[in-house]
Amino acid sequence: MAKDKKVEQITDMEVDFAQWYTDVCKKAELIDYSSIKGMFIYRPYGYAIWENIQKLLDAEFKKTGAENVYMPMLIPESLLQKEKDHVEGFAPECAWVTMGGSDKLEERYCIRPTSETLFCEHFRNIIQSHRDLPKMYNQWCSVLRWEKTSRPFLRHREFLWQEGHTMHATAEEAKEETERILNVYADFCENVLAMPVTRGRKTEKEKFNGAEATYTIECMMHDRKALQAGTSHYFGDGFARAFDITFTNKDNQRAYPHQTSWGVSTRLIGGIIMTHGDNNGLVLPPKIAPVQIMVIPIAQHKEGVLEAAQKLVDRLSAAGYRVKMDDSDNSMGWKCAQYEMKGVPLRVEIGPKDMEQGQCCMVRRDNREKTFVALDELESAAAAQLQAVHDGLYQRALKNLQEHTYEAHSLEEAKRLQEEKGGFIKTMWCEDEACELKMKEVAGMTSRCMPFAQEHLDDVCPVCGRPAKKMIYWGVAY
Amino acid sequence: MAKDKKVEQITDMEVDFAQWYTDVCKKAELIDYSSIKGMFIYRPYGYAIWENIQKLLDAEFKKTGAENVYMPMLIPESLLQKEKDHVEGFAPECAWVTMGGSDKLEERYCIRPTSETLFCEHFRNIIQSHRDLPKMYNQWCSVLRWEKTSRPFLRHREFLWQEGHTMHATAEEAKEETERILNVYADFCENVLAMPVTRGRKTEKEKFNGAEATYTIECMMHDRKALQAGTSHYFGDGFARAFDITFTNKDNQRAYPHQTSWGVSTRLIGGIIMTHGDNNGLVLPPKIAPVQIMVIPIAQHKEGVLEAAQKLVDRLSAAGYRVKMDDSDNSMGWKCAQYEMKGVPLRVEIGPKDMEQGQCCMVRRDNREKTFVALDELESAAAAQLQAVHDGLYQRALKNLQEHTYEAHSLEEAKRLQEEKGGFIKTMWCEDEACELKMKEVAGMTSRCMPFAQEHLDDVCPVCGRPAKKMIYWGVAY
Repeated sequence: MAKDKKVEQITDMEVDFAQWYTDVCKKAELIDYSSIKGMFIYRPYGYAIWENIQKLLDAEFKKTGAENVYMPMLIPESLLQKEKDHVEGFAPECAWVTMGGSDKLEERYCIRPTSETLFCEHFRNIIQSHRDLPKMYNQWCSVLRWEKTSRPFLRHREFLWQEGHTMHATAEEAKEETERILNVYADFCENVLAMPVTRGRKTEKEKFNGAEATYTIECMMHDRKALQAGTSHYFGDGFARAFDITFTNKDNQRAYPHQTSWGVSTRLIGGIIMTHGDNNGLVLPPKIAPVQIMVIPIAQHKEGVLEAAQKLVDRLSAAGYRVKMDDSDNSMGWKCAQYEMKGVPLRVEIGPKDMEQGQCCMVRRDNREKTFVALDELESAAAAQLQAVHDGLYQRALKNLQEHTYEAHSLEEAKRLQEEKGGFIKTMWCEDEACELKMKEVAGMTSRCMPFAQEHLDDVCPVCGRPAKKMIYWGVAY
Repeated sequence: MAKDKKVEQITDMEVDFAQWYTDVCKKAELIDYSSIKGMFIYRPYGYAIWENIQKLLDAEFKKTGAENVYMPMLIPESLLQKEKDHVEGFAPECAWVTMGGSDKLEERYCIRPTSETLFCEHFRNIIQSHRDLPKMYNQWCSVLRWEKTSRPFLRHREFLWQEGHTMHATAEEAKEETERILNVYADFCENVLAMPVTRGRKTEKEKFNGAEATYTIECMMHDRKALQAGTSHYFGDGFARAFDITFTNKDNQRAYPHQTSWGVSTRLIGGIIMTHGDNNGLVLPPKIAPVQIMVIPIAQHKEGVLEAAQKLVDRLSAAGYRVKMDDSDNSMGWKCAQYEMKGVPLRVEIGPKDMEQGQCCMVRRDNREKTFVALDELESAAAAQLQAVHDGLYQRALKNLQEHTYEAHSLEEAKRLQEEKGGFIKTMWCEDEACELKMKEVAGMTSRCMPFAQEHLDDVCPVCGRPAKKMIYWGVAY
């Protein structure tokens, strides 16, 4: 008989979105707290999502010609200081190693907050000729940023990410790389994570420390806040000059190479949770779900039921799906609630009645729609249902994005729209940082990006009234 | 025409084995030095070997039921101190973080030298009932040990590894796990890396800090020194008691779970180099070689040659091999030397004469044996040749191991054998640490392991003359 086991309760998102989010992270067993504030434990279910993200993204990076490497985790203070803007941005949040064993170190080392400086030092050793270019490297690792506040997946003192670092013979090639990778990220978010993105450029104020330009993909969460999901930076030859990296070009002259870096992190998991989740818990996009299909036998003590369920598992597994069966003695109600909470995209049920009729029942996680499927068509039906879940999630998120992107023509209107509706507020902008700061002060919003897909909304900047140069998106960001 | 490009020279191993090793690491572009002593850069070719090792081993771990997680990289000093033997062993080589941003921390944190303490803290939170057991976790990460000396792959201050940490309801189950994983490691070394291993138990002196027992696989390098290639530890309930981890067992009583941990590291790459390499450079076992087959067109300017070579690449690639082609304008001699140096297991050459005869030429890296293969049989011939390379490497290494494992019946003889022959010296042993220390002092050897496959060589310990309890292997180890 069913054990007295309850599915963990989750706060409704309408009651308290932040608490709902924490509940999902904790109760779906994605993450746990450690004894150091801001440092989290990635539990098996959460880490498996990251592994699936890694596997798919890594293949895309390799298609572009990128190669994986691993650089040391420590940066000597003198190395970090070589590029002025970079160190100013990162030094305040570095964790410093000052002792090795019982010896005080002669120089402090910081745990990498990002690795531009380490890559530059290495590039200096291995780049001599134009034949050594491009160098397109990536590493999967963790980085440390000693921040004051923290939140599962969204802001950790230590988080997992990948950081690409590339060097090119010309500015043009480097710019192409920046764009190519931004598109890899955007396509990945949309086609794999079912998260629609807005592609654009960051303002001078919001760009990466030391970069000439930062490109970004911005997503809208279910609570209409913005999430920066991935960035790609163009450095020009600034770091190359600071680190004295030169090469002999085709005309046999010394030249500085042009550089990029780009990264996404486990923040993407926070994005998945807040884009697709609901009051029953997590909802996972099928392509990265650790378990894509959960098979549940009905009246499993009846003759042949377990065997029939196992056969479904075997067939779906052979067809390449990540599939599990729950034949525990928990109740049917508990099992359904449990795997809804865990966000498993598709549930497949089979019982004596189904067996008689040569069918099983498929239940989608996103909308709970049930479909009875002839056993002959198991594999193709599973493929169709999983695709339908993906499409359903994408469409729901796109609707959220479209319905909550508003046009404003004055600072007043921008403020009112953010307060009353939330979401992305788009306006024109004069490109003066003073107006950006004013928007933050008055309407509580930061600039998200200047979208590549520009529109002409007004002739003037709504903040200062001077001629407008760009359309820009504003929002309240995680 | 051929460029004036030379293959990097490598010191002969007979002249200076240590220099030969460093040359191979550097010139085959496996590794580079960073500005911090003892912290190395894993370059693309070296990291790709590790990625292949990871992929294959990870699948084996998952078959045993292990799940991947990621724990924080920092350990509060108070947490490290909870298990007495453990902290004594590791504290002297910890790197300590004392500053976060500009603030001095209230407590020091060490960068993990290993993560038993972190896992125990987490296990304490998630293990309540026997239904929560076993917990079988693994993580792929880097660890730091602030050692005085360093050597590429063999001894880094920071190195990449995996660490498994498991908790079980009974001592018996934990012991089984320890053994299961040791066998996974041993099979992997033999079947994938072509490295024969000796399985056994470490002495009390050589076991892991805090463990009840440490099991090991020991390999013999080409210079007859020993390499500890992987270890698996049984902890009993020592850490569980220190960390107050308990569970309700099936009899509804509180009990302490039993624990294991196990790991292999990028040391394995050092082992591969020193087991299989020769004076022409690296020799890679086919299963983990980043490039398994290098196709080289001969007289590539002649009509149809490049197309024919490309067709070979396409077919071999479609058959699942990691294959590349070099159609650069470097000379044939340079190309052959270059890919020998890089250790590519199989070279495939095709030129106008071969095309006429519907064949190509396959050259094995291990013994340079050439075989002409009908193009019809390309895929099956490649499979056979790669298997032959694997088998050839394994047999050569096995011969080295067997020919240089010697029996000694006195301390004197042990010392002489090590000095004159090198390799593993096997003797009986009374199990007294004093005799182990004496062997080290007199013959310069440490105990490698007490092999599972015991033999009776003598009745008494060759050091002290008292009754012998075990046969033991001695050697000079990396």
